[in-house]
Amino acid sequence: MNAAGISIFGVEGLGEIRHGDPLAELIVGALADQGVGLADHDVLVVTQKIVSKAEGRVVAIDHGDPDAKRRLAEAEAVRVLRRRGDLVITETAHGFICANSGVDLSNIAEGYAVLLPLDPDRSARGLRDAIAHLAKGEVGIIISDTFGRAWRRGVTDVAIGTAGIAAVVDLRSTRDHLGRELVATEVCVADEICAAADLVMGKARRVPVALVRGIDSAWFRESSVRDEVVRPPAEDLFR
Amino acid sequence: MNAAGISIFGVEGLGEIRHGDPLAELIVGALADQGVGLADHDVLVVTQKIVSKAEGRVVAIDHGDPDAKRRLAEAEAVRVLRRRGDLVITETAHGFICANSGVDLSNIAEGYAVLLPLDPDRSARGLRDAIAHLAKGEVGIIISDTFGRAWRRGVTDVAIGTAGIAAVVDLRSTRDHLGRELVATEVCVADEICAAADLVMGKARRVPVALVRGIDSAWFRESSVRDEVVRPPAEDLFR
Repeated sequence: MNAAGISIFGVEGLGEIRHGDPLAELIVGALADQGVGLADHDVLVVTQKIVSKAEGRVVAIDHGDPDAKRRLAEAEAVRVLRRRGDLVITETAHGFICANSGVDLSNIAEGYAVLLPLDPDRSARGLRDAIAHLAKGEVGIIISDTFGRAWRRGVTDVAIGTAGIAAVVDLRSTRDHLGRELVATEVCVADEICAAADLVMGKARRVPVALVRGIDSAWFRESSVRDEVVRPPAEDLFR
Repeated sequence: MNAAGISIFGVEGLGEIRHGDPLAELIVGALADQGVGLADHDVLVVTQKIVSKAEGRVVAIDHGDPDAKRRLAEAEAVRVLRRRGDLVITETAHGFICANSGVDLSNIAEGYAVLLPLDPDRSARGLRDAIAHLAKGEVGIIISDTFGRAWRRGVTDVAIGTAGIAAVVDLRSTRDHLGRELVATEVCVADEICAAADLVMGKARRVPVALVRGIDSAWFRESSVRDEVVRPPAEDLFR
């Protein structure tokens, strides 16, 4: 255990993000305005929406057409798993199974929709590299989005891209406190960190970034949501 | 946002829990040993295993029989959804969809298995009521367990019982920052708090309880995982 515990702070004051905005600079600047400097083994959780906006992953949509969102979601999907009313559960090109391919009409000007980044792991690496030029220390980046779950009500935030911080930590070779080996304990720490970050973000608040401090230093390494978290179809019992 | 942020501490030193042990007293005592007193709107996340042990939800199992765990998991299930090798994905009497009905052979003496509490919401209420006699302030209790996910690798901790803290918070009637209503943003904050707590717990460490401080005071109310989180079969697209 990290004896000092974990602390989570919301990062505010980034303003409305537009295509081409330098996110790393804006985040480091907003942190400085809050009197916080990045330290070794900090993790920044950045919501997908501002990453997509900065990358220009915004498209016009006819907001008067009730089917427009569903059609866009289907266009963004490689496969539709389920439909019910307006909702489609899709598999995206990234391999994510989620509602409406992650297409989102909230917190964006009317008549526009935000799409997922094309390659969220690459987006995370870009942010990590840009922040490395601006701040000292080994900082992990996680891009989060809000997904539903098959058998549990309510959404939670999960990781769609990571850089510099493990997505899944394999505890299989560690022993329980009675000295026996533990099996099948691969923990998706990136999802757990995103869930923790969402507790200071809310959904309607302008807190698009959270700083998570106190994460186990052993978890900082090269990583990928696509390689570590996305379950290959061959392993999938429910697709 | 809670401007002060959120902090998470592991609670250590509870020792091996046995049937009948007074968990609330042990937790408050362990916190006191760490120099921490419970405060208004603290949340205690308590892992299922120590709750089950205190409640005597432990059964003998022939650990030499490779099928014993699967048979026990099937006996604890109301339905088996999928099988693959040793793994069964089941629906429990609580309505949880999880691996092996939550039957667990780690961190328990060889020859025994730990079962889920019969009614984890009731377990949480019991702990909450017992702690109310020992400490001041309105404290939320969440009982956590470790579940897999259909389409994402790696396990995460989720809530199986709650008392005094919301399981799902409905943000549907709040507005986004552009003033439009948000739809379908029911957030399972209890699962997010469990995921956050797991970051200080690990799996092989003797940290069966975490204190989460800084949770939105508006989320403290009567609650139930069974009523708020378990998705009724009629809503379920993937059972």
